[in-house]
Amino acid sequence: MAVKLKADGIIDFVKESEIELMEPQVKLAMQLLKEAEQKDDNMVGWHTLSINFNSNDVDEILESAERIRRQADVFVVIGVGGSYLGARAAIELLKSQFYNYEHTPQIYFVGNNMSPSYLNHVLNMCKDKELCINVISKSGGTLEPALAFRAFKSLLETKYGKAEAKKRIFVTTGAQKNSLLNLAEIEGYKTFKIPVNIGGRFSVLTPVGLLPMAVADIDIQQVILGAKEAFEDLRSDNIAENDSMLYAVYRNCLYKKSRRIELFTSFEPDFEFFLKWCQQLFAESEGKFGNGIFPVPVIYSTDLHSIGQFVQESGQALFETFIDIENAEDEYIVEKELVDYDSLNFLADKKMSFINKMAFLGTVSAHTKGGVPCIILNMPKKNEREYGYLIYFLEKACAISGYMLGVNPFDQPGVEEYKTRMFRLLKGKQEE
Amino acid sequence: MAVKLKADGIIDFVKESEIELMEPQVKLAMQLLKEAEQKDDNMVGWHTLSINFNSNDVDEILESAERIRRQADVFVVIGVGGSYLGARAAIELLKSQFYNYEHTPQIYFVGNNMSPSYLNHVLNMCKDKELCINVISKSGGTLEPALAFRAFKSLLETKYGKAEAKKRIFVTTGAQKNSLLNLAEIEGYKTFKIPVNIGGRFSVLTPVGLLPMAVADIDIQQVILGAKEAFEDLRSDNIAENDSMLYAVYRNCLYKKSRRIELFTSFEPDFEFFLKWCQQLFAESEGKFGNGIFPVPVIYSTDLHSIGQFVQESGQALFETFIDIENAEDEYIVEKELVDYDSLNFLADKKMSFINKMAFLGTVSAHTKGGVPCIILNMPKKNEREYGYLIYFLEKACAISGYMLGVNPFDQPGVEEYKTRMFRLLKGKQEE
Repeated sequence: MAVKLKADGIIDFVKESEIELMEPQVKLAMQLLKEAEQKDDNMVGWHTLSINFNSNDVDEILESAERIRRQADVFVVIGVGGSYLGARAAIELLKSQFYNYEHTPQIYFVGNNMSPSYLNHVLNMCKDKELCINVISKSGGTLEPALAFRAFKSLLETKYGKAEAKKRIFVTTGAQKNSLLNLAEIEGYKTFKIPVNIGGRFSVLTPVGLLPMAVADIDIQQVILGAKEAFEDLRSDNIAENDSMLYAVYRNCLYKKSRRIELFTSFEPDFEFFLKWCQQLFAESEGKFGNGIFPVPVIYSTDLHSIGQFVQESGQALFETFIDIENAEDEYIVEKELVDYDSLNFLADKKMSFINKMAFLGTVSAHTKGGVPCIILNMPKKNEREYGYLIYFLEKACAISGYMLGVNPFDQPGVEEYKTRMFRLLKGKQEE
Repeated sequence: MAVKLKADGIIDFVKESEIELMEPQVKLAMQLLKEAEQKDDNMVGWHTLSINFNSNDVDEILESAERIRRQADVFVVIGVGGSYLGARAAIELLKSQFYNYEHTPQIYFVGNNMSPSYLNHVLNMCKDKELCINVISKSGGTLEPALAFRAFKSLLETKYGKAEAKKRIFVTTGAQKNSLLNLAEIEGYKTFKIPVNIGGRFSVLTPVGLLPMAVADIDIQQVILGAKEAFEDLRSDNIAENDSMLYAVYRNCLYKKSRRIELFTSFEPDFEFFLKWCQQLFAESEGKFGNGIFPVPVIYSTDLHSIGQFVQESGQALFETFIDIENAEDEYIVEKELVDYDSLNFLADKKMSFINKMAFLGTVSAHTKGGVPCIILNMPKKNEREYGYLIYFLEKACAISGYMLGVNPFDQPGVEEYKTRMFRLLKGKQEE
């Protein structure tokens, strides 16, 4: 397995025998997942995505990505939630948080909020640059991306005229009839379809995530290959062979013991958006009927200097899931100073990745000592293939975990509530 | 008062009579804060910072900022925790998240993590640019900034030679003897001192935050003036006249009712780092002896598409504190489409800030209906003065809240634990 669960920081909190007693539950969850696949209206399409991908699908994405890379200095991705986090996560994780300072086309993400200031800044930065846009919305009707799409469509049409603008608009939307798909067909925009049976938070390995990744020159074939490896590795319903099951079991055991907050943690700042992707995946899948662990993304050692005190001394409702990379892909060697003014010459000639690793191990040691269970998800290195593997690993773990919890991990009935009230206010109706 | 607490979303959860019964406790907390000020080794220096500022202090900061703005294309701020969050928060909140795309000098923040990749990227972006750096560390010995300072000092000395490099290094450190202060004195770096009685998370209105703000062309005199207004407004220990007391009371009432997570929330993405600053302020002040509310920064409507489901249906341990700006400083008007393909022409000619406001009100309405108490901190607009006011308001509320909780809001004994273990590992000693 490419992603391995290391249990050193959790064995004091969840005993071996407890895991054994949970085996029937996790096997049942695996069974429920299999049954879900058989249903006509299943939402488990993410499950077999990597093995169903054919080379035509990939070529079609690569062709559009190539066209965008050739035509654009700036590529604007319009989407929110699952139509935003996965692609941004991949670009920051596999390239860098500083991608836009170092590469073209620059990639801006809009339509994930309704701040006029945010929109104006990006519009302003784009107006004198060569531009392509990708609007991503499964339903086709989500307000944030719809409003941003209006703005950028208008910018493109003003800038290039309607005919040329059409060639610079790429649409990713649900395969079912919707207003965006309808417009795309009328106008002849290049369109990618999201299968009906894949929800937003599970859609990163569809064109939703893959087109922006390919524009950022990420090898999407390797990403898919990684997911496929995970699919093969994680088929077994033997917990000793399947760490996604083990992870689901640990999470549920901790939840039973009143651990209600999970910190998703990395010592690599480029993981910031990946951890936010994790937050959506687990929060939206599990947060139902009063159930669920509240997931919070944190970057260490940065955030040890803000929440470290709390975790160390008041962490009784917390546990941590660390994404640990075995081998750093980049290195910096600490220089020796002639005068050892800061008394750090004992670290001279040491690798920064080594120091960062010791910070990680010191943190796990300190936090477990302080009463906070630490789960480690270890991946050998940070590359396209491992990324694809990790995505599938977490999606599967989340599905299993949700079934163990007794919820449907694939719906999200609660997200409509604020929208209903917002639209009522926007239409000037009285609140009930 | 410039910051007002609006109680519409909380009155169903904390009754008026409950507030009245808590009055003795909050008055006691005010008293404890006053007593703390009298002690020789008090850590309440932040309290009177704005009234003790004299024009020489301001001029000294402005002079250095002017020099940096003249000399540098890139200004690198080296610091972590309280030596990082406040300045970055102010720059993003008062300028924009996109500051670096639109202004010079660009400002990069390093020394807040130990990722070799992060460090290499920033070093690389800086090497061909005109550069000044500001290393910020009260103790002078924190590992993250110390290592980054070695790297950037070396870059400066290679690039400019030792003599010129000295003119481009600005040091902000504690007034008490420490290794960084010692080096600064030997080398003759321009140095700003942090008063002994101000802790990191309360230091944003010292040169720690003010120098980077001034480099970003933020009017620091207005910021100080705002804090001074808050100081005057919030002296009263009559809860009816002092919303920082009221906020502390609400937080403690909710905590008693098992609300253990506070979402600090804004509908303006530029608040992201400000909410992280809030997270440090409250987590490090209150998270002691098993006490404390776990603070989590979230940006809406963005994060409604990731955690919204959870908050709506599983929010029984949560409450939310919204920072709401009464009047948007920027505007975008929704355009009318000839063909109303997305059925959103009913919003044409509407202000985007109005739509964003309705999303805010719809959210408060939906979440309170879902059982999540919502506290609103309303500020008239987003500018330097209001920012200074808000900072002091929250610092004071946090101090009062901590005393009500029965902790010392000004220490952080737990943060050493991981450091001790990390250094043991770095020095190759066996773990105990």
